[in-house]
Amino acid sequence: MSYGVNVKFPYELKKKPWEQTIKPFNRWHPDVPMAGRVKPGEVFSVQICDWTGGQIGNNDSANDVRDVELEQVHYLAGPFYVEGAEPGDLLVVDIADIGMMPGPEGQYGFTGVFAKENGGGFLVDHYPDAKKIIWDYEGIYCKTRHIDNVRFAGLTHPGLIGTLPSAELLAAWTKRETELFDGNPERVPPLCALPTAEKALPGEATGAVAERIMADGARTVPGREHGGNCDIKNLSRGSRVYFPVFVKGAGLGLGDFHFSQGDGEVSFCGAVETAAWADLKVDIIKGGVKKYGVINPIFKPGPVEPRYSEYLVFEGISVDEFEGKVHYMDATVAYRRAVLNCIEYLKKFGYTGEQAYLLLSCCPCEGRVSGIVDIPHAVCTLALPTEIFDFDIRPNGDGPTKADRGAQSNCT
Amino acid sequence: MSYGVNVKFPYELKKKPWEQTIKPFNRWHPDVPMAGRVKPGEVFSVQICDWTGGQIGNNDSANDVRDVELEQVHYLAGPFYVEGAEPGDLLVVDIADIGMMPGPEGQYGFTGVFAKENGGGFLVDHYPDAKKIIWDYEGIYCKTRHIDNVRFAGLTHPGLIGTLPSAELLAAWTKRETELFDGNPERVPPLCALPTAEKALPGEATGAVAERIMADGARTVPGREHGGNCDIKNLSRGSRVYFPVFVKGAGLGLGDFHFSQGDGEVSFCGAVETAAWADLKVDIIKGGVKKYGVINPIFKPGPVEPRYSEYLVFEGISVDEFEGKVHYMDATVAYRRAVLNCIEYLKKFGYTGEQAYLLLSCCPCEGRVSGIVDIPHAVCTLALPTEIFDFDIRPNGDGPTKADRGAQSNCT
Amino acid sequence: MSYGVNVKFPYELKKKPWEQTIKPFNRWHPDVPMAGRVKPGEVFSVQICDWTGGQIGNNDSANDVRDVELEQVHYLAGPFYVEGAEPGDLLVVDIADIGMMPGPEGQYGFTGVFAKENGGGFLVDHYPDAKKIIWDYEGIYCKTRHIDNVRFAGLTHPGLIGTLPSAELLAAWTKRETELFDGNPERVPPLCALPTAEKALPGEATGAVAERIMADGARTVPGREHGGNCDIKNLSRGSRVYFPVFVKGAGLGLGDFHFSQGDGEVSFCGAVETAAWADLKVDIIKGGVKKYGVINPIFKPGPVEPRYSEYLVFEGISVDEFEGKVHYMDATVAYRRAVLNCIEYLKKFGYTGEQAYLLLSCCPCEGRVSGIVDIPHAVCTLALPTEIFDFDIRPNGDGPTKADRGAQSNCT
Amino acid sequence: MSYGVNVKFPYELKKKPWEQTIKPFNRWHPDVPMAGRVKPGEVFSVQICDWTGGQIGNNDSANDVRDVELEQVHYLAGPFYVEGAEPGDLLVVDIADIGMMPGPEGQYGFTGVFAKENGGGFLVDHYPDAKKIIWDYEGIYCKTRHIDNVRFAGLTHPGLIGTLPSAELLAAWTKRETELFDGNPERVPPLCALPTAEKALPGEATGAVAERIMADGARTVPGREHGGNCDIKNLSRGSRVYFPVFVKGAGLGLGDFHFSQGDGEVSFCGAVETAAWADLKVDIIKGGVKKYGVINPIFKPGPVEPRYSEYLVFEGISVDEFEGKVHYMDATVAYRRAVLNCIEYLKKFGYTGEQAYLLLSCCPCEGRVSGIVDIPHAVCTLALPTEIFDFDIRPNGDGPTKADRGAQSNCT
Repeated sequence: MSYGVNVKFPYELKKKPWEQTIKPFNRWHPDVPMAGRVKPGEVFSVQICDWTGGQIGNNDSANDVRDVELEQVHYLAGPFYVEGAEPGDLLVVDIADIGMMPGPEGQYGFTGVFAKENGGGFLVDHYPDAKKIIWDYEGIYCKTRHIDNVRFAGLTHPGLIGTLPSAELLAAWTKRETELFDGNPERVPPLCALPTAEKALPGEATGAVAERIMADGARTVPGREHGGNCDIKNLSRGSRVYFPVFVKGAGLGLGDFHFSQGDGEVSFCGAVETAAWADLKVDIIKGGVKKYGVINPIFKPGPVEPRYSEYLVFEGISVDEFEGKVHYMDATVAYRRAVLNCIEYLKKFGYTGEQAYLLLSCCPCEGRVSGIVDIPHAVCTLALPTEIFDFDIRPNGDGPTKADRGAQSNCT
Repeated sequence: MSYGVNVKFPYELKKKPWEQTIKPFNRWHPDVPMAGRVKPGEVFSVQICDWTGGQIGNNDSANDVRDVELEQVHYLAGPFYVEGAEPGDLLVVDIADIGMMPGPEGQYGFTGVFAKENGGGFLVDHYPDAKKIIWDYEGIYCKTRHIDNVRFAGLTHPGLIGTLPSAELLAAWTKRETELFDGNPERVPPLCALPTAEKALPGEATGAVAERIMADGARTVPGREHGGNCDIKNLSRGSRVYFPVFVKGAGLGLGDFHFSQGDGEVSFCGAVETAAWADLKVDIIKGGVKKYGVINPIFKPGPVEPRYSEYLVFEGISVDEFEGKVHYMDATVAYRRAVLNCIEYLKKFGYTGEQAYLLLSCCPCEGRVSGIVDIPHAVCTLALPTEIFDFDIRPNGDGPTKADRGAQSNCT
Repeated sequence: MSYGVNVKFPYELKKKPWEQTIKPFNRWHPDVPMAGRVKPGEVFSVQICDWTGGQIGNNDSANDVRDVELEQVHYLAGPFYVEGAEPGDLLVVDIADIGMMPGPEGQYGFTGVFAKENGGGFLVDHYPDAKKIIWDYEGIYCKTRHIDNVRFAGLTHPGLIGTLPSAELLAAWTKRETELFDGNPERVPPLCALPTAEKALPGEATGAVAERIMADGARTVPGREHGGNCDIKNLSRGSRVYFPVFVKGAGLGLGDFHFSQGDGEVSFCGAVETAAWADLKVDIIKGGVKKYGVINPIFKPGPVEPRYSEYLVFEGISVDEFEGKVHYMDATVAYRRAVLNCIEYLKKFGYTGEQAYLLLSCCPCEGRVSGIVDIPHAVCTLALPTEIFDFDIRPNGDGPTKADRGAQSNCT
Repeated sequence: MSYGVNVKFPYELKKKPWEQTIKPFNRWHPDVPMAGRVKPGEVFSVQICDWTGGQIGNNDSANDVRDVELEQVHYLAGPFYVEGAEPGDLLVVDIADIGMMPGPEGQYGFTGVFAKENGGGFLVDHYPDAKKIIWDYEGIYCKTRHIDNVRFAGLTHPGLIGTLPSAELLAAWTKRETELFDGNPERVPPLCALPTAEKALPGEATGAVAERIMADGARTVPGREHGGNCDIKNLSRGSRVYFPVFVKGAGLGLGDFHFSQGDGEVSFCGAVETAAWADLKVDIIKGGVKKYGVINPIFKPGPVEPRYSEYLVFEGISVDEFEGKVHYMDATVAYRRAVLNCIEYLKKFGYTGEQAYLLLSCCPCEGRVSGIVDIPHAVCTLALPTEIFDFDIRPNGDGPTKADRGAQSNCT
C-alpha cells in the first residue's frame, strides 16, 4: 500500500515492455543478467505489466485473447541478486504488500478463456473458444460489466515468482519436458511449451549470452522446483515464501500478478490478470535446502486474505463426463467434475456457462483434494463463497431465481 | 452434544455389530430395508461403531490393522425412510451435531496405514506395511501416545453418508467399475472392490431379498453420485448436505465417523477412526435435482470448524518421485509430491516417515488443487496448521530441532 | 461431546438440587467442603442444573421469571480439590468440552428479562417487567418459538467458574461491597447482593461449618479476583483458563452454563440459560501468580467458536438517552446507547423491543470498548452477526421489511 | 492499493497544512465550504496528513509529543458535497481502500502518551509523562525500534470520519459539552474541549463565514452523532458505513488515519498515527435515518482485517486499583483494570510499563464489555493476539522469559 518506495524495478504502463528502462525477462536461464541487487532485510519494490505485456485491452471483444502471442509470456521483473545467497540456501521472501498501478491502464484486469488452438484451459473440451471479461477495481474489490450481481475482494498475488535455475536443473527440465512432448508432438493444445527463441526476452543480456538464453531458456509456463508459475492464490499480501537457491545471488524474478484467482485458475488466462507493484523483503537461511529437506518452495500465507464464513461446496468424483468411465484415483478428473457441477448449478440462475467458467477461475473459490484413497474414485471439492453474489444462491424449496445476468465478451 | 435424544438407531459398543438391536448394513442396494422412519423437520439421533466394526483395538500392535477384513466394511446406520422423499427430490440433511460414545470403547480412535496386500494407501509404494497409532480424546481435542508434541481439535464428521441408489444407478456403478477392474484384475492392491456376498450385511433383510442385496449390492468403498464414502472432512458439525434422491423415502445411511481427518485421508485408514453418535435433521426440496442441476451432493460447511491462522504450505508438481517423469496435468501426482515434501520436512524434526504420513492423514491439513492449467504441471499444495505442534516447526536460521518424538505401532 | 465419562459431579435433572447425590453449593467461602479430588492431567466431567436450579419452565409465561428466588443462585458443581495446588499457584483449567444433558429437561434453554424489583437488567429503565423466551436445541444450533426468523450456533460456556477465596480475600470482598451497599441501601434494584443465610447451600458441610458458610459466604452474583460469575462468552469449548489459587487444593467450582450469550448478557438472565455437562482437565503452574503478576484470571479462547464473517455494527457514545447529558468517558453509558440503537433498528423489521433486547442478550454479538480517550465521549460498539437471521437485515434503499415476528412471553 | 486515482483531495507531505492546494479543515460547522463534489457510485481518492499536521517527527525524543498544539487538530480532508444527499438521508460510504503515502514522510507512524497537562490518556494517573515510539512500515506490517520482538499487520482505518452537523445539532453539542465543562472548569486534563478560534481552520472559507466557523465550530476531539472521531479500529479496508445526513450535500470529511489501533486507543495519541490516502465510494439511502431509526452511524466491517486465531485474554472488574473501591457497573474502570492487568503481565517479560501501554494502544487487541449485569461489577476483557510477538508469551511452568526489550522515547 506504499506505491513507489525504493523501486528497484520500475515499469511504465504507457510504454511497451521493450521500451522500459530496465527490460523484463521471460525465460528461465542461469545466465539472465541480474537486474538489481538487494540486501537481506531490505524492503524494495517492483512494478510489472500483466503477464501478456499489455496485449489484452479494456474492451468488449475477445479477439485479443484469441490472438495473443504466447511466446511473449510471462513478462517478469528481475532477476534480483540477493547479497549472500548461494546454492543450497533458502531464500526467504516476504511479499510485504501488493498494489495496483496508478492511471487508467492499471485500474482494470481481464480474465480469458483461451481458444483450443492457443492452449485451451481446464475445460477445453467444453469451452474451446476465446472469451473475455473485464474487471474494474474499486479499492480492494472488483466487479465486471460482463457478469452481473458479483463483487468480491481480491486475493491478490504474483502468479509467478521464483529463483533462477542452475544449468543442471535447467537441463533436467528440458530433458523431461521434451520426453513428454515427444510422446504426442502433434497434440492440440500441446502437452507442454518447449524452449523457443521466438519473442524470448533475455533481460539486459546481449550478444552470445542473450542468444544462449533465448535458445535454451525454459519457458515460464509451468511451476517447477524453483517456484515459477505455480499460480497459488494464497501467496498473497503478507505471505512468506522459502525458495531453494540454485545460483549465486538467487536471481529472484516475479510477475503475472493476479488481482484475484480461484484454486486451479481453471480457464487458463483465468485470474483477474493485472499489472501491479509489490513490496518485497528478503532474507537467507544458509544451507536451508538440506537442513529442511526442501524440494519445492514452502510458504506461509499472510494474515489478510479475504475472510468468508459461508461456502457452497460442489463435489466431483473421478468418473468422466463423456462416457461415464472410471479414472482410477484421478484427482484431475474429479476436480473437473466438481467445477462442471458448479457451472451447471450457476447456469440455473441465468449465468452462461462461459460466465460461470470464468467466474470460478478468478473468484476466491477453494479447490480441494478431499478423498484420494477410496478406490477407485478420487473425490475433489470446489467451495464457492456465497457472499460474492448480491443475491442468495443457496438451494431452497422455491428453486433458483433465473435472471438475465449479462454476458461475457466473445470474438467479433 | 446431546447424547441419547430421540435415538432412531442405537448401537452398543460392547456388542458385536450383528448382535445389535437394529442391524447395520454394509452394501448399497435399493432393497435394503428401511431401519426407521423420520419426518422432515425432525431432529433424531443415530449411533454407530467405527467403520471396521471394532476390529482395531486400543493397543500397541499393528497386527489388527494388517489382518482387518475389508469385506466387512463399512458398518452403516440406517437406511432411514424420509417421509415424502421421492426420486428427483433433494434430501436436505443437517448434521446438527456429532459426539463420541460414552465408555472406554468410545473414548479412543485409531489411524492406520494399510498394508499393500490389503488395499494400501496413497503412498503405498513408499509405506507398504501395516502401521497404527491410537488417539485419546480430551473433549474436543485428541492426542496420541504414538506421536509426541502433537494435539489438535477434531474436525469431526461422517466419512460416509448417502442415499440408496436406484436399481438403474446401481447397475451403472457395477458396469463401470467392472470395466475398470477387468483392465487389470491381478493388480495388488486391486483397482476397485466389486460386489461380494462375503461378510455382506443386508440390514434387516432376510431370505431372497437378503441374498440379492448381498450378491449385487455395491461395495461402500468409494464415493459416488449419492454421496457415500466421500471422506470430505468439512461435513462437520452444523453442515447442511443436499443429496439427490433415487428411491422412495431416500434411504439415508451413514457411518465411518472420523474424529478428525486431513484432506485426502492419505493413509487410507487415515482418519482418526471412531465410533460416534450424530444428531440429524432432514428436509426435502421437491424436484430439486432438476431445479438445481445436481449430479453429486452439494453442501454447506458448518460454522464451528477448528480455526487456525497460521499454516505452513508445501507445494507439489506433477513430476514423479521415481524417475522424475512429467505427468501431464496430473493432480494426483502433484498432491502426492506435496505430501511427500511435507513428510520429508517433518522427518527433519525427528518424526519417522510413518508418523508424518499418519499425521498428515488425520490432522486438519488442507489439500488444494492450486494450479491445473499451466502445462504440463499440475500444482497441488498441502497446508499444515502449525498450531497443532507444541513447538515451533517454522523454518528459521538455526535449522530444525531434532528430537525423539516417539514411534507408531508396527506389526509384532 | 463425550457425555458421561469419568463423572466427578453427577446431576439428575429430574430431582431437586437438594436431592442430588452430591450437593451443589451457592456461596463462596474457604470452608466449603471439597466435593471431589482431581489430579493434574486428569480429564473429568461435571454435570449441573441451570443457574436457578430448575425454577424456570419450558412454557409460555414469564411468571416464573418474575417470581424467581435469587437467594438460591447460583447452583455450582464442586468445589474440587486439585492435588498439589497451593495458594500463589495458577490453576490451569482446560474446558475440554461442554454438552447438553440428555432427556427433555436438558434440551431447552431460557432467556429472561428480570423485573426491576428482582434485579432488573442493563436496560431496566426501559424494560422494567419480567419477560421470557424459550430456546430449543438442534444440535449445535438453537431457535425459539418466541422470536421468528432467528437461528444460530451456540457459543456455549460456563457463565461462572472460579476458585475458593481465602478468608482474607473473602473479608476484603465483604468489606468493599458493604461499603458500596451502604451508600444507597434502599435502592431498587440493590447496588449489590450481600451475604445472607437464606437459601444458602454450603455443599456437603454440616453443623457449625455450614452455618459459617451460610452466614458469611460471598454471594455468587459478580465476578471477582478468583473468576466467579464473569459471564465471559468466550470461555467456550477448548478454552484454557489460568486462575489464581487462594486455598490449598484450589477448590474449583463452576455452573451457570450458557448455551449461548452475547457480550454483556444485557437482560441479566440474559444468556440461553441451561443445564449442562463439561469435561475439564486441570494443571498447575507453581508460584504462577507472582511469576506472571496475575490479579484476575487470564484465558485463551478455544478454536471452535462459531465463525461469522459479516456483522452489522452499532455505535453508542456516552451521552444518555434521557436528557442528552454527557457522561465523561463512561463506557457503560456508551454501551447502553449502542444496545439501544441496535434495538431500535431491529424494531423497524417488526421485532418487539423486548424480543430485540432478549436476542442481543443471548446471541453471539460482540460488545467493544472502541474509543476510551476522546474526551468527553466513550465510544462503544455492538456487532451483530447478520447470518443469525434468515432474511437480509442490512440497510438498503427499499427500507426494512416489516413483518410479524412473533412475541416474547409476558407475565400472565 | 491504487494510489493516485481520481484524487479529489490531494495533500503534499513536504508542505505545511496551510500551504496545500486545498486547505484541510479542523472544526465541525454547517458552513464549512465544500471542498469538492462527488456523485453516488463514484470512486474517488483523498490524501491527508497525520492528525497533528506533521508536528511529530521520526526521531527518538518525546519532546514533540509533549509540546504538541492540540488546538490544531484534527486536520481533515473534505468536506465533500455528495450529489443528492439531503438531511434525513443515510450517506453510504465504502472505504474501498487505504494506503500509505509515498516518500519517507509517509513511511512511518508514531504512537504517543500525552502528558497529563496536555490531555493525558486512559491511564493518565499511572503514566502522566509524554512518551513516544516510532513505527516503520514493511508493506502491511509494522515494527518499531522502540519495542523489541513485536511485528504485526496493520488494521488500517480513518480514526475520524463523519458528516457536517446542522446548526441545530451543533448547538446541542455545544450546550451539553459546556454543561459538562462547567462542572469542573479547572480540571487537568480538562473534561472536554470547547470551541476556540485558536488555530481553527475553516477550510476554504474566508471573511465572516470563516470567523463564524472558527468561533463556533465544534472541536473534533470526540465522536458524536455524525460519526467524527470515533476511533473505531474496524472501519478498515472494505468496510461500509451508514452516516446520518444533517446538511444538504452531507459534507463528508475524514482524517486521523491509523496504520493500526487497539480497541480503546488507550494512550490517547494511541494508534500508529499516520498520513494516508483512501479510496472512497458513496451512495445514498433516501430517508434512511427514519426508515432505520438511526441515531449514530452503523457500519459493516470489511473482509480483510488481519486474522488471528490465538489470543491471551485479560479480565478486569470494576474495582479500582487505588483504594480497592467498587464502582457500580462501571465498564470504564473494568476496562482500565483489564489493560493494567495486561501491562503487568507484559512487564514480567522485560517490557517497560510505557512500552506495554503504548503497544496495547496500537496493536490489534480487542476490548470487550463481557459482563454488564452482574451487580456490582462490570467485567471487561482485553484480548491480545499472541502472534504479534516473535516469542511465546503464553503462561507455562517455567515462568516468563525476561529480557531487555528496548525502550520507548522519553522527553529529553
